[in-house]
Amino acid sequence: MMRELTVDLGDRSYPIYIGAGILNDIGALFQKHGIGKGSPLLVVTDEQVAAHYLDQVTGRLGEAGYTAASHVVPAGEKSKSLAMLEQIVATALEAGLDRKSTIIALGGGVVGDLAGFAAASYMRGVRFVQIPTTILAHDSSVGGKVAVNHPLAKNIIGAFHQPEMVLYDTATLLTLPDREVRAGLSEMIKHGLIWDAEFTDWCEANAERLVGLDPEALQYGLYKGCSVKAAVVSQDERENDLRAILNLGHTIGHALEAVGGYNELLHGEAIAIGMVGAAKLSVRLGNPEHIYTVTKRIFQKFGLPVSIPAHLDTDEIMRAMMHDKKFNEGKIVYIVPTEIGQVEINKNVSAEWVRDIVDQLKRED
Amino acid sequence: MMRELTVDLGDRSYPIYIGAGILNDIGALFQKHGIGKGSPLLVVTDEQVAAHYLDQVTGRLGEAGYTAASHVVPAGEKSKSLAMLEQIVATALEAGLDRKSTIIALGGGVVGDLAGFAAASYMRGVRFVQIPTTILAHDSSVGGKVAVNHPLAKNIIGAFHQPEMVLYDTATLLTLPDREVRAGLSEMIKHGLIWDAEFTDWCEANAERLVGLDPEALQYGLYKGCSVKAAVVSQDERENDLRAILNLGHTIGHALEAVGGYNELLHGEAIAIGMVGAAKLSVRLGNPEHIYTVTKRIFQKFGLPVSIPAHLDTDEIMRAMMHDKKFNEGKIVYIVPTEIGQVEINKNVSAEWVRDIVDQLKRED
Repeated sequence: MMRELTVDLGDRSYPIYIGAGILNDIGALFQKHGIGKGSPLLVVTDEQVAAHYLDQVTGRLGEAGYTAASHVVPAGEKSKSLAMLEQIVATALEAGLDRKSTIIALGGGVVGDLAGFAAASYMRGVRFVQIPTTILAHDSSVGGKVAVNHPLAKNIIGAFHQPEMVLYDTATLLTLPDREVRAGLSEMIKHGLIWDAEFTDWCEANAERLVGLDPEALQYGLYKGCSVKAAVVSQDERENDLRAILNLGHTIGHALEAVGGYNELLHGEAIAIGMVGAAKLSVRLGNPEHIYTVTKRIFQKFGLPVSIPAHLDTDEIMRAMMHDKKFNEGKIVYIVPTEIGQVEINKNVSAEWVRDIVDQLKRED
Repeated sequence: MMRELTVDLGDRSYPIYIGAGILNDIGALFQKHGIGKGSPLLVVTDEQVAAHYLDQVTGRLGEAGYTAASHVVPAGEKSKSLAMLEQIVATALEAGLDRKSTIIALGGGVVGDLAGFAAASYMRGVRFVQIPTTILAHDSSVGGKVAVNHPLAKNIIGAFHQPEMVLYDTATLLTLPDREVRAGLSEMIKHGLIWDAEFTDWCEANAERLVGLDPEALQYGLYKGCSVKAAVVSQDERENDLRAILNLGHTIGHALEAVGGYNELLHGEAIAIGMVGAAKLSVRLGNPEHIYTVTKRIFQKFGLPVSIPAHLDTDEIMRAMMHDKKFNEGKIVYIVPTEIGQVEINKNVSAEWVRDIVDQLKRED
């Protein structure tokens, strides 16, 4: 069974295919979408994913008559660099990629961002296919935001470059470690919290099946999560306004990741704490108490953290936040839930309030 | 006096301003085009241009209430690198550039391409203003093609990123060395040869005034040259078909630049020889003889080379060409004049014919 949905962006619209084992159909899907066989392809992946799936992908493409070169980078955030981009371009040149070629990102968010920026900039832009292999990447693989890091800032050199398609084989998720599964589901829950109360209820009711990687639950959850992302991106491709709501939980979340040195908390864990913080802020702003209790209860059901590790320093967290986000006269733009399944972009949240929330989150149980 | 024309690209349309001394009006022009004062600007330039014009630009912007940081790179092609991009981004971050900031390219083609790619990729794209300070850059500053080089290939990492405006102060051209002036005019003549017979006649009749940097002739010539470029780009922004005609003379030209080690022939000189070669090829294909005689006569009037230096090896030239362009079964896509002011995209030119032309160009007098 394969689910399909469309990211509606006019002449840049593209499909997302979700199903178990669909990597085996990659040749047929490429042909269906007019990816020609006259120009070589390049698969970019990391060492861990390559060990499991690279042969399958290049093998199936070869059987379908495609020529596919590959470039394997070390796993981890450090690969999102200009130096790695330069190496990928060298491989692309040696493999003879031309303007009609397609670059394929096979992996999680790091590979997607890196290969995506390579596709955006090689010969001023070639086609690009996302094959996410993590749950977290159901978020990052949709929407066309691609980038590499700079020594001074994350994701600061990049582009908006929409893929030709997203090919999401849920069979690749079965090899993920449990902690990564839970952290990945955090973004799925976020998509419910910002957009769809019914889906939020469904997530809570199906926490156990999702964490246990039940195929049917996983496919439905990813389908719904991608649908929310697609709907938001369709209305605001270049993040002028609405797209900001996807950052629910990210203000505190990013700061916690940074202060934890990017190895204490996974992204999904950090934003889970951040979403509990946003819910607390919501109640402080006069919204109903259940926004906080329900939000916290859901993340607890998924075994995700809902409090800030006590040894992380509040001053440091606030400094990291000020470095990451723009404060104007002590105010910050904050994504605040106004109901389960609804958020607002609040431009009037003071740094003091956020600091209070951070302090409370350190005492949360 | 200031001339103005528009590059018509729907919601990415932008004006080109051409006039002597208009750099002094930069503050007013920025305000007119809605460039806000709340976010810092960054001027990217090279050491040579900085010595002449950087203080003027930042000074005038400061008087108008803008905050402008600057980043100065060494002059020359080597600055078009990812390493330099990383340095520019560091300066941008330190200066606090945000998504509403504008990056300004003050210089020739190298600075325009480098700063343009920085603007295309910083925070996934910020605004960009071109201030060309060479005659050659009347070509490269219009049309939005920006890029850096890779050790294995020129211009291979880049984007299509249209500027907000092009501000062309012809007073900055008066300090150019004579050889660069002549070479720069080569692209202006090209714009006549591909599009406008009348303008070609005008160029020939005004060769002496142009080479002598007569202000009125220069402004008119640049205005007409930019107009042709703008018309072509408007019809084919992303070089799917028509835009290829801008490559008249470039097949042989690029090969000559490469074989000469990028220091024997200037770009404008190499493409002058290439355009004479294209005219010879045209006659061989059955077009009237005068296409060749007129083309050659014009370049001679501008003191530009019309023959290949005898010591450059034909085999090496052909190898460089095969590396640069795509030959399919011994055929190459070639821009061929069919009349003065008209060209065709000929997909049926054989490598053998091109080799003959190269041999003839080595014996040309």
